[in-house]
This record gives sequence, C-alpha cells and structure tokens, in this order.
Amino acid sequence: MRYKMIVSYDGSFFHGFQRQPDEISVQQVLEEKLAIIFKTKIVIHGAGRTDAFVHAKGQVVHFDSDQLIPCENLRKVLNKHIFPHIYIKEIRFVPNEFHSRKSAIKKEYRYLVSINEFDPLKSNYMLFFHDRININNIRLAMEYIVGTHDFKSFSKNKITKNTVRTIESFTLTVDKGILEFAIVGDGFMYNMVRIIVALMLKVGEGRFKPEDIKRILDGKERRLAPFVAAPQGLYLWKVHYDEKFNGSIEPIEK
Amino acid sequence: MRYKMIVSYDGSFFHGFQRQPDEISVQQVLEEKLAIIFKTKIVIHGAGRTDAFVHAKGQVVHFDSDQLIPCENLRKVLNKHIFPHIYIKEIRFVPNEFHSRKSAIKKEYRYLVSINEFDPLKSNYMLFFHDRININNIRLAMEYIVGTHDFKSFSKNKITKNTVRTIESFTLTVDKGILEFAIVGDGFMYNMVRIIVALMLKVGEGRFKPEDIKRILDGKERRLAPFVAAPQGLYLWKVHYDEKFNGSIEPIEK
Repeated sequence: MRYKMIVSYDGSFFHGFQRQPDEISVQQVLEEKLAIIFKTKIVIHGAGRTDAFVHAKGQVVHFDSDQLIPCENLRKVLNKHIFPHIYIKEIRFVPNEFHSRKSAIKKEYRYLVSINEFDPLKSNYMLFFHDRININNIRLAMEYIVGTHDFKSFSKNKITKNTVRTIESFTLTVDKGILEFAIVGDGFMYNMVRIIVALMLKVGEGRFKPEDIKRILDGKERRLAPFVAAPQGLYLWKVHYDEKFNGSIEPIEK
Repeated sequence: MRYKMIVSYDGSFFHGFQRQPDEISVQQVLEEKLAIIFKTKIVIHGAGRTDAFVHAKGQVVHFDSDQLIPCENLRKVLNKHIFPHIYIKEIRFVPNEFHSRKSAIKKEYRYLVSINEFDPLKSNYMLFFHDRININNIRLAMEYIVGTHDFKSFSKNKITKNTVRTIESFTLTVDKGILEFAIVGDGFMYNMVRIIVALMLKVGEGRFKPEDIKRILDGKERRLAPFVAAPQGLYLWKVHYDEKFNGSIEPIEK
C-alpha cells in the first residue's frame, strides 16, 4: 500500500531534502527511521527538493510498503524517532496512482524578510534586510509576476526546456517589521522563488523599477535577474493535490 | 577603560555562556574575537551564567582594555566576527566601578511555553506542552511567588547560604497558544526560574493546587518541587543597573 505523509522540518539542520553522499538530508533520516520501523528498506519520494537551510511546513512524501501500520500509530512512533528537527503532521493511505511530485497541482512557497534590527535567534528563519525599502513599489512589481509567463530569466537551470509557469497568486503581508511573501504556482524551477524574491527586494531598494519586471520576463535571460535570496528565508508551505488524493486512515483497496 | 556590552545569542549553538574546557561557549567566542580585534587577551565578565540551550536577549558583559576603540566601530567589527549566533546590541564606556554581575540591581527572565501542535522550527525556542492546562490556576499560583521569600525549595545548589530572594513581578501573557512568563527579581539561584516555571505547569496540569505553592515555599526543601523546565524555553531578557551605569559613547575619565 502507498503511504502519504505531510512533513515539516527545520532546514537549518540538513543539507536539503534529497539524499547526499556525505551530508545529512531529510530523506536519509526519514528512510533510516522508516527502515527501523518497517524492518526493511523504504524509499521515499518528496514533492519538492528543498536546498540546504530551506524549511518546510508542508513537504509531502510518499512511500510503499506491503506492511500495514495504522496511520496514527506510525505517525507517533516515527515522530519519536525523528524528534525534534523533523515532524510528521499527517499520514494517510492514498491510491497507488498518487505520486507526491507528479500528482501535485500547485505548490505554495513563503519567504520571510525582516526589516527589524538583526536578531541572532531568528537568523536561520528569515532574511534580514537593512536597506530602505519601498513596499508599494514591491507590490507593484509583484503584479508582473502573477499569471502565465516564460520564467527563463528566473531559472538557473539551463537544461530545463519548458520554462513557462503559471503563478496563481503572489501576495505580501507586512506585520511588525516582517515581510511575508506567499507565492502559489503550478510549478517552480530550481531557485525560482529565491530569484523572484531577490528581485522584488532590488525593486524595494530602488535599484529596479516595478516595470522592469516586464522587461526582465520578456528578455528571457538569466543575466537580467542574476540574484538569489538566501535559503533560510524560504519555506515550502503547502502542496496541493486533487481531492481524491486527500487519503484515508483506512487502507485503500487496490 | 571599561567597556559594557549588551549581548543577545541563540543558546542552541553553545554549551552555555561560561567557558568550558572542551565545549564551545559564548564567553569563549567573544573573548577570542575581541582578542583578534584588540590584538591582546581580553577577559569578559557576564551578568549571569546561562546554561546550554538557554538564550539571551539582554545578557550584559564588561571587559577592560587600555585601547580606545569607538563604541560603534567596535560593535560593527565584532558583530561581523560573531555573526550569526551572537549579536552585540550596544557597547558603552562605563565607570570602572561598574561590574556586570555585581552592579546588577535586578534581572528579568522570560520563559516560553507553546500549547500548539509541535513545530520543529520552534523546538529550540520554547517548551511544547500538550497536556490540558488551566491558565487561571497558573495565575493564582504565580501570586504566591511574588514578594520576598526563602526560595530554598527552588534551589538545586545546596551550597548557597542565603536563599532569600525578592521577586518584584511575575506575569503571564497568552497569545496564539504561546504562554510567555516574565519574571523580575533581585536575583535568581541556579535553575530557579526553570524550577518555578516547571511547578507552575504542574499547577496548570492539576497535579498541584495554587495554594500548594505556599506550602512548598514554607517547606524549604528541594524535594517538594523536584522539577526543572527544559532550557530551550528560557531567555535572559534584561539586566537592570543604576542609571549612572547607562554608560556613554565617550570614554569615561578616571
């Protein structure tokens, strides 16, 4: 049967989600602990790779096993094994055609920027930004990002062929000196959110005008937006699927 | 001349404030970086020792040097050296009779408890508490702590002779599932805040009644309150001194 898990983690403690030869990753920890519980090798598949220092509030993974362990029992015992830097929020049985990455309809990322005085207790959880910033101009620039565009200028990866993505929404809330960007789209290329946020901050500083965003999109060249915001401000917030993949606490018949 | 610094740090990354033979401490990092800047050995004195994992928003340290470095210059260069887990909020010249610990009139500690679902991104910054909790009873219990009492039952250290302390205020604010205890007193013995908070939570759970606090204070025995709340919820928030020790950005004449 196929298990789906919603996972949150503190990216500060891992070299990203994906297994690395010599560095600790979220995938490695989850697979090792699941192997202890299931007493056999388990391979997990994540909805999105997160880089070192990038956090997740709602990463989704799936894995298969012939063994049936009730969801809540598995969640409790696994959470004990992975405490405290990874936490399983939910486990459900899903149909076999569910795939954490391929079935994803859209994803939400958030990015936190603080314009307050530096706080060492928050250094792993947001970007500190101390130049003068024009929030209104950032909001104007954000409007150019929403919609279906060729994001070639916002992709580091030269191999990706289809660089067209649809951004459903891109919002900014400002509370007590913390800027929270929330972006929802049908897909994001490598570093795309961090490149977009970095460019929004350049607009906030006055180095670019809001209308430059259109020029950069139309130019379709990475060198037009050669910035990447730091990983520690980024959160994989939520992965959206069709309702039929909500899953069940009851094992699903094949 | 004597320098006074207000320091914040993320205790997760240190084995406490005080130098340890084989473990990294806040004191060691500050002394090493100051030695680089002043090109000679510098010894710092902190207002309070914080244990491993205990944070500081307003630790105060002092040190002496014959060399005059303007406060803001020193702050900037030192902050670059200690980034990102320690941060110097302020540096001032103070009179030579100032001593970070001995001159302290009162100290404020805070302690954070979350009754929300566990969040791996906050595991180093608060205690997660998942039993049912009666906030009103906690508030009633807190009233017994305020005032001048013999806190022998709240001290781990059997050597301390004078166990009488005055608690000026002890307040609790609850916001979005986070309990923030704030306690101000003329002095705190080793682990005293964590012992008090642990006992308040026992009252919240219903294992003790608010009026038991009086019995425990009167009993003057550690075994009556044998609990210690986890270090990661604790913050050395502020150290209060006489106004004459506010300090100056101008060097002070001897």
